[in-house]
Amino acid sequence: MLTRDVQVLSVPSTELHKVAISKHADARFQTNQTNPVHNTVYRDYPFFTDIQVMIFLGFGCLLAFFRLYGFGGMVLNFLMATFATQWAILVQGYFQFYHDGKIHLGVINLINAEFACAVVLISFGAVLGKTSPLQLLVMALLEVPVFAVTEWTVLTYLKINDAGGSILIHLFACYFGLGVTSVLYRSGLNEGHVKENTSYHSDILSVMGTLFLWVFWPSFNSALCLNGDDQHRAILHTFIGLSASTLTAFALSAMFNKNGKLTMADIQNVTLAGGVTVGASVDMMITPAAAYALGMMGCIACMLGYKYLSPFLAQRCRIQDQCGIHNLHGLTGLISCAAGICAILMASEDVYGPSLYEIFTHRAPVEGDPKLQELQMLIPGLQAGLGRSAREQALFQVAALFFTIGMSALGGILTGCVLRLPYLASPSDDCCFDDELFFEVPPDYDLPLKICNKITVDDSAA
Amino acid sequence: MLTRDVQVLSVPSTELHKVAISKHADARFQTNQTNPVHNTVYRDYPFFTDIQVMIFLGFGCLLAFFRLYGFGGMVLNFLMATFATQWAILVQGYFQFYHDGKIHLGVINLINAEFACAVVLISFGAVLGKTSPLQLLVMALLEVPVFAVTEWTVLTYLKINDAGGSILIHLFACYFGLGVTSVLYRSGLNEGHVKENTSYHSDILSVMGTLFLWVFWPSFNSALCLNGDDQHRAILHTFIGLSASTLTAFALSAMFNKNGKLTMADIQNVTLAGGVTVGASVDMMITPAAAYALGMMGCIACMLGYKYLSPFLAQRCRIQDQCGIHNLHGLTGLISCAAGICAILMASEDVYGPSLYEIFTHRAPVEGDPKLQELQMLIPGLQAGLGRSAREQALFQVAALFFTIGMSALGGILTGCVLRLPYLASPSDDCCFDDELFFEVPPDYDLPLKICNKITVDDSAA
Amino acid sequence: MLTRDVQVLSVPSTELHKVAISKHADARFQTNQTNPVHNTVYRDYPFFTDIQVMIFLGFGCLLAFFRLYGFGGMVLNFLMATFATQWAILVQGYFQFYHDGKIHLGVINLINAEFACAVVLISFGAVLGKTSPLQLLVMALLEVPVFAVTEWTVLTYLKINDAGGSILIHLFACYFGLGVTSVLYRSGLNEGHVKENTSYHSDILSVMGTLFLWVFWPSFNSALCLNGDDQHRAILHTFIGLSASTLTAFALSAMFNKNGKLTMADIQNVTLAGGVTVGASVDMMITPAAAYALGMMGCIACMLGYKYLSPFLAQRCRIQDQCGIHNLHGLTGLISCAAGICAILMASEDVYGPSLYEIFTHRAPVEGDPKLQELQMLIPGLQAGLGRSAREQALFQVAALFFTIGMSALGGILTGCVLRLPYLASPSDDCCFDDELFFEVPPDYDLPLKICNKITVDDSAA
Repeated sequence: MLTRDVQVLSVPSTELHKVAISKHADARFQTNQTNPVHNTVYRDYPFFTDIQVMIFLGFGCLLAFFRLYGFGGMVLNFLMATFATQWAILVQGYFQFYHDGKIHLGVINLINAEFACAVVLISFGAVLGKTSPLQLLVMALLEVPVFAVTEWTVLTYLKINDAGGSILIHLFACYFGLGVTSVLYRSGLNEGHVKENTSYHSDILSVMGTLFLWVFWPSFNSALCLNGDDQHRAILHTFIGLSASTLTAFALSAMFNKNGKLTMADIQNVTLAGGVTVGASVDMMITPAAAYALGMMGCIACMLGYKYLSPFLAQRCRIQDQCGIHNLHGLTGLISCAAGICAILMASEDVYGPSLYEIFTHRAPVEGDPKLQELQMLIPGLQAGLGRSAREQALFQVAALFFTIGMSALGGILTGCVLRLPYLASPSDDCCFDDELFFEVPPDYDLPLKICNKITVDDSAA
Repeated sequence: MLTRDVQVLSVPSTELHKVAISKHADARFQTNQTNPVHNTVYRDYPFFTDIQVMIFLGFGCLLAFFRLYGFGGMVLNFLMATFATQWAILVQGYFQFYHDGKIHLGVINLINAEFACAVVLISFGAVLGKTSPLQLLVMALLEVPVFAVTEWTVLTYLKINDAGGSILIHLFACYFGLGVTSVLYRSGLNEGHVKENTSYHSDILSVMGTLFLWVFWPSFNSALCLNGDDQHRAILHTFIGLSASTLTAFALSAMFNKNGKLTMADIQNVTLAGGVTVGASVDMMITPAAAYALGMMGCIACMLGYKYLSPFLAQRCRIQDQCGIHNLHGLTGLISCAAGICAILMASEDVYGPSLYEIFTHRAPVEGDPKLQELQMLIPGLQAGLGRSAREQALFQVAALFFTIGMSALGGILTGCVLRLPYLASPSDDCCFDDELFFEVPPDYDLPLKICNKITVDDSAA
Repeated sequence: MLTRDVQVLSVPSTELHKVAISKHADARFQTNQTNPVHNTVYRDYPFFTDIQVMIFLGFGCLLAFFRLYGFGGMVLNFLMATFATQWAILVQGYFQFYHDGKIHLGVINLINAEFACAVVLISFGAVLGKTSPLQLLVMALLEVPVFAVTEWTVLTYLKINDAGGSILIHLFACYFGLGVTSVLYRSGLNEGHVKENTSYHSDILSVMGTLFLWVFWPSFNSALCLNGDDQHRAILHTFIGLSASTLTAFALSAMFNKNGKLTMADIQNVTLAGGVTVGASVDMMITPAAAYALGMMGCIACMLGYKYLSPFLAQRCRIQDQCGIHNLHGLTGLISCAAGICAILMASEDVYGPSLYEIFTHRAPVEGDPKLQELQMLIPGLQAGLGRSAREQALFQVAALFFTIGMSALGGILTGCVLRLPYLASPSDDCCFDDELFFEVPPDYDLPLKICNKITVDDSAA
């Protein structure tokens, strides 16, 4: 198994000689016209570090919520994130940044790769605790290219608006993960598992992860927006959406609990629903009130999903979605997509002014259209577009939605089949949600569990 | 009770339709004269994320120091922070950002709201562990408007210098919290409570919170300073003040302990005193040596407060200040205010040059004064002021001090009376400092306590 | 002992009156020509906060990996970091920022001081758990001046290229720490110590520290680079190097373990090797493939060091390197230095264009050389250099390497001798790796250990 681990891990390094640094990182391109402070690194790097914190600390802590699977959650997240990012730099590089026989590398590529990495980590949530590191690496190995192809197709041919990645990132990740987990269905786990629970410390650690994600989510949603007011709006709307879903989540958590108590799993997950729901329209001129409403709607859908849909999927559809990614990324992603379409249909020059054609680039007049020249007087540097109407743009969004869901579900199912190959060392049902199988653990790792059992035995003996 | 929870939580959403995005986030206002990189979002957003980390992770971890109240500290902090920020956006919006029938929203509003949120969270420290979530929400609901009115009055009529918010934030929060806790006095808790202690892990978590606050405090103190040298000074002085108070806290902690050991509560709280003490004069031309001295003085006052004043207040004045906010925010705030007044009295054109009138805007000559024109030649864009002398400005600072303390103490006492209403579900003395009342807890949450008791019993039996 | 603690802690404050703020933080120097947004604070502050997170949270969590020494790791790191930074501001100030009878202070000085602080914290790793707080303070008190002299000599006379500080920071820190620990050799600890192990929670905490360091390491390596493409390259190369070493570390960790499991100590330490290895050449035009190869090489060397060299050093050379800093900073630093020399020898105008003379400033033509004028037409503001050839520059790098290692080892040995003075309260062998000696600990701090022992006793009794 070790040799295979190493083989998979070495995949990214084989194509490395074709990677070169981009113009903004290349000393040769610096002339007496180049002002160092205008280097793109200063535009991109702050967003990059914020997203890094989300990926490594946010996801890492959030996924460490199982009592006996803290190493698994945090360390395998570390492994997956590093592997997926590198692999995505290469694969996305070939599709998006390849010219003159080389992949051109700048911080912007790293941000794009972080998004691909987020896709993998979300899908990871569906199979957390039930897969070997080797299976996870193979999953990342297969998911990244499928994602890159889907992304490239949507960006090149369908040309949609999706600043926060609700369609491309969240829906893709969700349906890929569901595809994988449906193939890896384990009937033995449907009645729950003795180790499938949290401890006091793992719950606190997981909330810390949620807080890291909460704090930096505005950077995630705005990183790839246009500079200026678009990015400003994306930050505001994300903050508002998250705030709305957080308050709603607290209220619903107490309402759904029979004693009126708060449930930690809700705090850890449902509070974040608003960040996804505002995604597709995050840079548009939706109002703060609409962003708030989206946050609340996403939260309600997510909460109902955890309550009713997840058990249904597990018992009737053989889809065991371990962290409930279908609730936090699927349902919210669908709402976000619908909201994005509404926002596109309602977008007009009255509301946006001429910068309508900067945000919806594909609605800009085609080359040669006299309207283009008029607009270019108002906004210098405006590029020619495709002359799409609002309705046409909305149709392309719908097409992208179905294409993405189709590609991801198919890719997930095929990946799941590969992961069933016997030499990928899938853990037995007994060993799920347990660090001991893949980590050297200190002797106290299961102490609280042992004591709880011992106390029960002693009490019954007495 | 649940319905009431939801009623309170829904307060912020009712007025949302009056919130609009500000000019810098509005697509209509982008013309061929607008350079996207000059959008205010790039000036404000880095400070905003730093303060977000302080609010959600810094306060969240710091307040999770009780052995059985880790969820309470971290999760109720999350709830309070989100609720208070939203509510503050609306209330401050009406007072400060309301024109054309709408509240205009940009990242700068979020920073202002974060400051109001910090006020609520500091006051929260006075009643930590002794209040229900519903009581906390009502407290935030009442505190934010009192704060917004006080802030607006001070900024509009008294026009003081208080870059780090020592008067408006720290003193207000402190005396409001003391007011609340004095009304909520519980005689049963004066002899200590069996659950009022820490565990090894909760202590470490709390230190992490301190470190988050320590690292980003310079951003807190400088976020609203003038751009340029003022912000530069604020960062330096905050760093120096914190450094001084940290070293002093370690020294004093060992000195006051009879075995010369370090006490974790000192490390968690007293180290931060310097950040408050430099607040009121943080952007002025006090020297690094003065910032260092302020940090040391604040730390000594804070330490003595924890040692002597807090027990005195609890036993003689019926003020149970759970986290000692009077030491960390009250005493230090008073020192800071005094230092600010000294710095104002000593401020002269010799030291500041003409930018004296940028920092102390109210000392700038009035409209029509020939001196104003002279100054505008040196500093283009300098605004007319009120022609105050240094002594006049100092008197206004004193007035603001008393006004703020009066408003906050009064507001706190009234809020405390509201919180005594029986249907706000105040926990009984027995259930204080215990997560079990408001959270679904995993079975191991009180395991260490049970075992400690069991070991004691076993030992005495043997 | 307490008096002595306080004496040491008060050292930095005695010279404070000679510190003044720098021009960019001084109100007097603001004229109608000064644009506030060009203040150096905006260039330096984002890097400063990133490095602060590494120092306080990264190192703090990473060093808290011992089961019973969590307070020691995190809190003594806090004490050391604050003390060392202040002391470095003064000492570096005298050497590098002293003119007109004053030390001139800006955020750039803080960044430099943070680097000196990192040196002290790395050395701390060699003696973790075996030293009293007073010993640690004296160590910092002595190490900072030796470092400042070495740094000043190298920068002033040898003038080397070392953007990531592989020579000046990592190698200095490593050999200083080894010097100290070799003098403090404890034969009683060579067979291991009953408390020298981790717990489940301390391991997770330590991984969080690793993640903080991982995420912000690009800021560490690029903070002092030239603005623009140099900084861009430094960020990319650091990210690539870290990614390579992380994947390699996972693969090697599983390979070296007899059960194919992952070892947490490897994840916590070896993953970071790449950040050091790319250091000396991080801003040069090495390719991404070379950065990747460097990361892998550093990781392999580091892993082999932990496996074979550390035990050898401890048993044969009486050097007990507690955290293995010789593997993570020494071996990797040597590789980095060698790679830097190769990169210097291969640097030519073909690859760099005229900006060759900006990166390798000492290779720029001397004043009066006609080539200088030609270059200044291409790059305005290029400064005259020393006209060194690539080979000469490489020789100076070698000289700096030996000088740094010599100074640090000598300084470390002398410091170790001072630390043996009896009144510095060195803990006995029994009390090593135990918080109880220097901290008030909660009753549950050693509970898991007690229970494990009890269970073993019970089982054997039964």
